[in-house]
Amino acid sequence: MWGNSMKLSLFGESHGEAIGIVIEGLPAGTTIDHDLITQDMNRRKPGTSSLTTSRKESDQVHIISGVYNGKTTGAPLCAMIYNEDHHSSSYDILKTHMRPSHSDYSAYIKYHGYNDIRGGGHFSGRLTAPIVFAGAIAKTILNQHDIYVGAHISCIKDIYDKKFETLITKWQLDELKHKSLPVLDDICITHMKDTIEQARSEKDSVGGKIECAIINVPAGLGNPFFNSLESHISSLMFSIPGVKSITFGTDMTSMHGSEANDEYYYDKEQVKTYTNHNGGILGGISTGMPIVFEVGVKPTPSIGKIQKTINIETKDNVQLELKGRHDPCIVLRAVVVVEAMAALAILDMMNIK
Amino acid sequence: MWGNSMKLSLFGESHGEAIGIVIEGLPAGTTIDHDLITQDMNRRKPGTSSLTTSRKESDQVHIISGVYNGKTTGAPLCAMIYNEDHHSSSYDILKTHMRPSHSDYSAYIKYHGYNDIRGGGHFSGRLTAPIVFAGAIAKTILNQHDIYVGAHISCIKDIYDKKFETLITKWQLDELKHKSLPVLDDICITHMKDTIEQARSEKDSVGGKIECAIINVPAGLGNPFFNSLESHISSLMFSIPGVKSITFGTDMTSMHGSEANDEYYYDKEQVKTYTNHNGGILGGISTGMPIVFEVGVKPTPSIGKIQKTINIETKDNVQLELKGRHDPCIVLRAVVVVEAMAALAILDMMNIK
Amino acid sequence: MWGNSMKLSLFGESHGEAIGIVIEGLPAGTTIDHDLITQDMNRRKPGTSSLTTSRKESDQVHIISGVYNGKTTGAPLCAMIYNEDHHSSSYDILKTHMRPSHSDYSAYIKYHGYNDIRGGGHFSGRLTAPIVFAGAIAKTILNQHDIYVGAHISCIKDIYDKKFETLITKWQLDELKHKSLPVLDDICITHMKDTIEQARSEKDSVGGKIECAIINVPAGLGNPFFNSLESHISSLMFSIPGVKSITFGTDMTSMHGSEANDEYYYDKEQVKTYTNHNGGILGGISTGMPIVFEVGVKPTPSIGKIQKTINIETKDNVQLELKGRHDPCIVLRAVVVVEAMAALAILDMMNIK
Amino acid sequence: MWGNSMKLSLFGESHGEAIGIVIEGLPAGTTIDHDLITQDMNRRKPGTSSLTTSRKESDQVHIISGVYNGKTTGAPLCAMIYNEDHHSSSYDILKTHMRPSHSDYSAYIKYHGYNDIRGGGHFSGRLTAPIVFAGAIAKTILNQHDIYVGAHISCIKDIYDKKFETLITKWQLDELKHKSLPVLDDICITHMKDTIEQARSEKDSVGGKIECAIINVPAGLGNPFFNSLESHISSLMFSIPGVKSITFGTDMTSMHGSEANDEYYYDKEQVKTYTNHNGGILGGISTGMPIVFEVGVKPTPSIGKIQKTINIETKDNVQLELKGRHDPCIVLRAVVVVEAMAALAILDMMNIK
Repeated sequence: MWGNSMKLSLFGESHGEAIGIVIEGLPAGTTIDHDLITQDMNRRKPGTSSLTTSRKESDQVHIISGVYNGKTTGAPLCAMIYNEDHHSSSYDILKTHMRPSHSDYSAYIKYHGYNDIRGGGHFSGRLTAPIVFAGAIAKTILNQHDIYVGAHISCIKDIYDKKFETLITKWQLDELKHKSLPVLDDICITHMKDTIEQARSEKDSVGGKIECAIINVPAGLGNPFFNSLESHISSLMFSIPGVKSITFGTDMTSMHGSEANDEYYYDKEQVKTYTNHNGGILGGISTGMPIVFEVGVKPTPSIGKIQKTINIETKDNVQLELKGRHDPCIVLRAVVVVEAMAALAILDMMNIK
Repeated sequence: MWGNSMKLSLFGESHGEAIGIVIEGLPAGTTIDHDLITQDMNRRKPGTSSLTTSRKESDQVHIISGVYNGKTTGAPLCAMIYNEDHHSSSYDILKTHMRPSHSDYSAYIKYHGYNDIRGGGHFSGRLTAPIVFAGAIAKTILNQHDIYVGAHISCIKDIYDKKFETLITKWQLDELKHKSLPVLDDICITHMKDTIEQARSEKDSVGGKIECAIINVPAGLGNPFFNSLESHISSLMFSIPGVKSITFGTDMTSMHGSEANDEYYYDKEQVKTYTNHNGGILGGISTGMPIVFEVGVKPTPSIGKIQKTINIETKDNVQLELKGRHDPCIVLRAVVVVEAMAALAILDMMNIK
Repeated sequence: MWGNSMKLSLFGESHGEAIGIVIEGLPAGTTIDHDLITQDMNRRKPGTSSLTTSRKESDQVHIISGVYNGKTTGAPLCAMIYNEDHHSSSYDILKTHMRPSHSDYSAYIKYHGYNDIRGGGHFSGRLTAPIVFAGAIAKTILNQHDIYVGAHISCIKDIYDKKFETLITKWQLDELKHKSLPVLDDICITHMKDTIEQARSEKDSVGGKIECAIINVPAGLGNPFFNSLESHISSLMFSIPGVKSITFGTDMTSMHGSEANDEYYYDKEQVKTYTNHNGGILGGISTGMPIVFEVGVKPTPSIGKIQKTINIETKDNVQLELKGRHDPCIVLRAVVVVEAMAALAILDMMNIK
Repeated sequence: MWGNSMKLSLFGESHGEAIGIVIEGLPAGTTIDHDLITQDMNRRKPGTSSLTTSRKESDQVHIISGVYNGKTTGAPLCAMIYNEDHHSSSYDILKTHMRPSHSDYSAYIKYHGYNDIRGGGHFSGRLTAPIVFAGAIAKTILNQHDIYVGAHISCIKDIYDKKFETLITKWQLDELKHKSLPVLDDICITHMKDTIEQARSEKDSVGGKIECAIINVPAGLGNPFFNSLESHISSLMFSIPGVKSITFGTDMTSMHGSEANDEYYYDKEQVKTYTNHNGGILGGISTGMPIVFEVGVKPTPSIGKIQKTINIETKDNVQLELKGRHDPCIVLRAVVVVEAMAALAILDMMNIK
């Protein structure tokens, strides 16, 4: 579970009855925006493009509690997504053969072999569906405070998009949500698609990066040291399967201080900085500039190529050839998950009642 | 405050009476290792080399509670470091002139102007001294479980050290602690020193990166989603002033899955991976391989060059020329702070009583 | 949400789609004991005796996640109870007329009128059903460690049962679970039933007390000050609707110290006390003696008698006559809820993985 | 540690260097009220009357951090009270002889014998001094919101004071703070003093009860279930050494519902209840009526009479005769501690920034 003013509790397994989330601490009276929910759920859904897995998941969200007459009641909001029939038999070999770069082995040790391994169980990327739902609720509330969240694919393997400018508009963030491949510079779309298609054709996978921005966050949000805004955001980002790195603002490690320092100025009565290398956070506290960070997503660990691994039962070194349909690149579907987590992190810090 | 099985509470301001920390949840009966404390405190202390500020701080730690007859009692351990006389007058201009890339402005907004700004107040890098103390206590306990923490400077601006090998020995980690500049490849020492000296001579500063390893952490530590081991470690790393990025293991974003995946094998009865691109963590849970991550530290924001900024009282755009002795590069002194936070993160997860 | 090593998240409304609970942090590999669950759910269920409401609730528990092949997986366990059709129309007057001693008014203010008031919504006593389920899971694990929980009705209005003896056996606790009215001294059963029946016939209600014991809890569990075992248990007990008081051990306020002090002795190698006025807790930490406490439950606030109240819309002073079938005494059904909360409090403190 | 919007961390041992507290999350800009602090510290201090121990403690509070120019800065406030020289030798027998009804044995087990037992160590009632300080800070902030806290001794052994009326004024609460024995009905003062004096003359002790009220708390504070206002307050009350029971409002267990229910009415535009049997809390949430509760304090466990106990080293049953000066009744000094905890509980729930 996670949160200060809100509490999130995520449950479910890929091949169990359902997956879901409980969200505590939402302000009462918020109208559920079904269009936003549908839009965001669709952005995460597989099977919508040749670039994602051809598996079909009907990610229909059922709100179980916490909403009455279309508005939040202030009581815990539980939402569920029922799982459909799966052919679990194909996963039998996974009981003994630990997939490299998956959670199979670490989970086996932690849970003494009792964890549900079908489809990755509780570790499945499928668990990000309820997070996207929760994010859509969070965005709805943030939008009412004129705060907006958006993200783009900043790189696929070695194909790089542009970075966000120092000042970012709601319009720019909106536009990204309607692109087949959300990038700032459309010129890289073809290259990115080619990179992904080639990986697929080679039974391989690729990773990438996602840059996310939250605009109009008021200055003064966060804390020094143990609950810094960076700590808060990063703790959620590292809850997304496959995310292994985060950088706030620009990578300043090879800059001089005189280049990296964001100098202040008054734009009319508003305090701004000429640059935003610090990503809108100083001393763990928001400055009022856009909050910007970039996360790195590793290549999908499920690949069709033959891999070396262990058989945990026989204690032998073995080979593993994974069957089935896998995303050659999870970066695409992770964009909206990153946005969702960002929205939840900010909403929790804002403590709106 | 921070922690699950432990709780950390950090207090104090740079120019107040004292700074300190309260640590709850330590196992009773741990012998305080004064040598380790002294060694680590000295590694953080300024004024020990031409590469750090010439300010002198006597970082003598006073244990106030929680220790009896040289051993922890299980009650909260409070440790304090008294501040010595400071000439605060030189800081008068900082009441109105917000230093770029410092917390001055964001803290001013958050605390409505009531925060103690002398020497950075509670936001001062000086607050990392009690953290280093707490880290030394944590290391003492971890060492008893054969777990060791160590770190090296992996880059200063654009001068790069080697990275840790896949397997890391206690001996390698120990050796780093006795170097004037803790790097794996001594050939980069001169270049790094030159880079720092040049920045100083230009009234400027430089940043860099620190790679940290924790070896012999048992497999099975951590959680999926909201309290992943990456979340836990990163939340502490982003509590260190100046840290703006973290990467677990290797940057895999430009790799193919077939390259990035860490393949398993049995080394006798022990499960290992041929590579460790995932930095010893899969599904948010430790694998038994070394836990490895790299943090990026921004250039010291305090530089002598003239900078543009605002006067928060008169609401004017102004210029600021900082006086005083500043670290041209805080990466050196941050190495032991990163180690301390790593030790605290792991100890908290291990829940030793 | 609640808990340290475990986390509980309760959701649902009386007349919504379902109610449920998410339990995080259960040890993997625990076999679900369906008999124990059924037994405990039946002890809470209404309509099983003339002393409770004649409403029928089919409290069938559906486990959604966290269990595989009949054993806990270590992942969050979500359990749900679907609500059946309710005639909500009879509650229309409750939108404006605040029921005395119910949460109607305080919830109206907190949630700005957006809370679901049908059947009490999230505040309904019905929400204790998932708690009883969670308690049955907790008891299953505690029983494996030879720890047992039991409770009896210690008074109904002014009819008093005996109190637990200093030493309590598993057999005594078991026996209570099979009685129609769980008391130590059967002689008070008739008097208690008469008291309840009379209240019902007068369209009124009565309260009472429940004494609970947990035996074989190892010494050393708990903390001084802010997370004392009493703090931990009481925080859960005051989560049960209607509970307004708790006393640990015996009421010692009118005793001399020489009478109240529990003197120690060795019984063979085991440390015991001749009396147990402190209820097995000293300095916030368990002593190894039975943990004993008594909670006071107020009379059911829903009564058929005409009451004065306010109309929150018209801002008038009005009268209210409640219709419908109400428990004349919720003490009976609360016994197993108290046991459940006690089991959860102890299990959380034990931190079994 | 404790708290949601605030965090409290208490440290120190009776015979260590100092005791203290760290308070995080205080609103910046609050002026420290030294008169209130002195008044409250004096109300707890021993040696001020023949009814308390003749030990002298100079409870001078040193504020270490978090205050600048007499106002809170928003950073963690650390306050310390240095211990004076103690003759610890008289406590030697306590290393082996467990005092009945003290924490000696339970702490010995929990901390494997490493706890500091001099003067009770961290379990000493002396640790309530920093709590009283923290309470004075909390009261200062609450008073600015027109919220006031006060308490009286409602019984000493079997001598009973009156209870608070339904409506309580600031004036009534103030008056209590200036009485030698804070009671509502002065007629019981002599009887209470006699009862205490007699216990002292017999080398014995007595317990009692304290009733506390907080007035003008706005309606809508608290939560259903796991973080109810009763849960929150009780968790702090059971952090006070010697407190073993709490009752919110009136003991309603022997009432009929028709008597216990607090009927609403509009007093002009303000919602009130004719009675306040529920102590200002319904459904875990404040109603706007005074929050009222009564805690039971056990007789001082330290008595001069010979007692049976065990020698934990030799594993023998032995006798113990305690020397030294003990409070024959800690109820008197606990009054202001109860107030302090009440103020902290409410302030934490109010989340003032």
